[in-house]
Amino acid sequence: MRTYTAEIITIGNEILSGRTINTNASHIARRLTSIGFTVRRITTVMDDLQEISSIFREVINRKPLLIVSTGGLGPTYDDKTSEGLALGLNRSLEYNELALNQIKEKYQKLGLELTEERKKMAYLPKDSIPVENDQGIAPGIYTIYDNIEILALPGVPREMENILENFIKKYLKTKPDVKYQEKSILVNKVMESAIAPYIKQLVKKYDLYIKTHPRGYELSNPSLEIQIAGSSSNEEEINKKIDECLTEIKDIVKKLGGVIES
Amino acid sequence: MRTYTAEIITIGNEILSGRTINTNASHIARRLTSIGFTVRRITTVMDDLQEISSIFREVINRKPLLIVSTGGLGPTYDDKTSEGLALGLNRSLEYNELALNQIKEKYQKLGLELTEERKKMAYLPKDSIPVENDQGIAPGIYTIYDNIEILALPGVPREMENILENFIKKYLKTKPDVKYQEKSILVNKVMESAIAPYIKQLVKKYDLYIKTHPRGYELSNPSLEIQIAGSSSNEEEINKKIDECLTEIKDIVKKLGGVIES
Repeated sequence: MRTYTAEIITIGNEILSGRTINTNASHIARRLTSIGFTVRRITTVMDDLQEISSIFREVINRKPLLIVSTGGLGPTYDDKTSEGLALGLNRSLEYNELALNQIKEKYQKLGLELTEERKKMAYLPKDSIPVENDQGIAPGIYTIYDNIEILALPGVPREMENILENFIKKYLKTKPDVKYQEKSILVNKVMESAIAPYIKQLVKKYDLYIKTHPRGYELSNPSLEIQIAGSSSNEEEINKKIDECLTEIKDIVKKLGGVIES
Repeated sequence: MRTYTAEIITIGNEILSGRTINTNASHIARRLTSIGFTVRRITTVMDDLQEISSIFREVINRKPLLIVSTGGLGPTYDDKTSEGLALGLNRSLEYNELALNQIKEKYQKLGLELTEERKKMAYLPKDSIPVENDQGIAPGIYTIYDNIEILALPGVPREMENILENFIKKYLKTKPDVKYQEKSILVNKVMESAIAPYIKQLVKKYDLYIKTHPRGYELSNPSLEIQIAGSSSNEEEINKKIDECLTEIKDIVKKLGGVIES
């Protein structure tokens, strides 16, 4: 089965100072996973031109099929993603007529002039397509480099989510033919270290992703969430496999004196 | 002023699938920022030996003063951080007597035997110190490589936070002599694109980090959080500078017809 790899880049000092929790990366990761991509890395970098161009270059060198970035597309001095992407791709930054029209129209409706700061959002790397932003001003930036699809999204969650959906619906070429499925159970009174050797065997047997997430205290009050996940082009088949594995895990939990909570 | 650079690595497929929001990275980032570090990157990688060793090597090549990782230190088959760190540093993975004693003691109190899975948590890269975990089993791993301080923390938030505090208190050698300060105000009825040119000038004038975070709708109902931050060895001086800048921003907001909410 072909692996559809993706990487996510988040741009913003507010993430790096711990001020903002990176929920944007989680949203994009979950959405890409749901349509069959495997997200291999998420990297957060500063609002700095060199850092932004470097990270795009580094990610391109790892050759994922899709790169999605978020942050740094607005009108302020520290919004440098478009310029950084252009630099990373070694392309010129150009006025994109389509983007300019989208932006102009929005401000003109309110009788507002197109200042330099507002025009800034229409400068895109050469050979890009502005992806419609129904929730704000700055369009997303879609381009292809070396067969890698690249999408740059703004950082405002509402706008980021809207453009991502528009992108998946209208532009994304690499459509994985697999479905991702996952199930999980909560069990008490079983230590993670006690069930560990059994989980290791089940991973080999089923070729599924099985992970124990500690939710209590290993020694005094053990509680574990056990997650089982996998991808397949055959939804029925992968669900059946997960269910079989789950049944076996439940038997092991009982054998170890555990209690299945849900 | 010397910049105290740090990088954060988070290890875990559950972050990459979007299942878990990366609050651990935010906690570590905020804590490091509060003691004067500048976090330059946060990278999330898979529970994969090659990926873990690669990311440690990549980060070491960028020569931050401090690297903090979280995740992958438990007893299960997919906890590979210790092994990955050893591989990345080109050091052998060895039984650490001190770590073994810490772990053995915790299980023995409950009359539990030391299985292979439990012993696994005592394998540390050569020349490491196990950092006390008062909230769980697996100790943190502290080592120094090429003058870079490296700390590996588990992924369970309670344990991660506890070990990080123990580390800062007892082991961290690179103590920045600066204090980080920040203030922010919420303003309505000013578009981000309208205030942008003023902010750009203020950044130059004050050499502070000023960022506008859109909280409303640029066109129909603009609302902005304006954040001002800076670091200095002189706490009084940096606070005075931030206050002066804040006064000037408030004047600009009023001039643009804005309302200061808080």
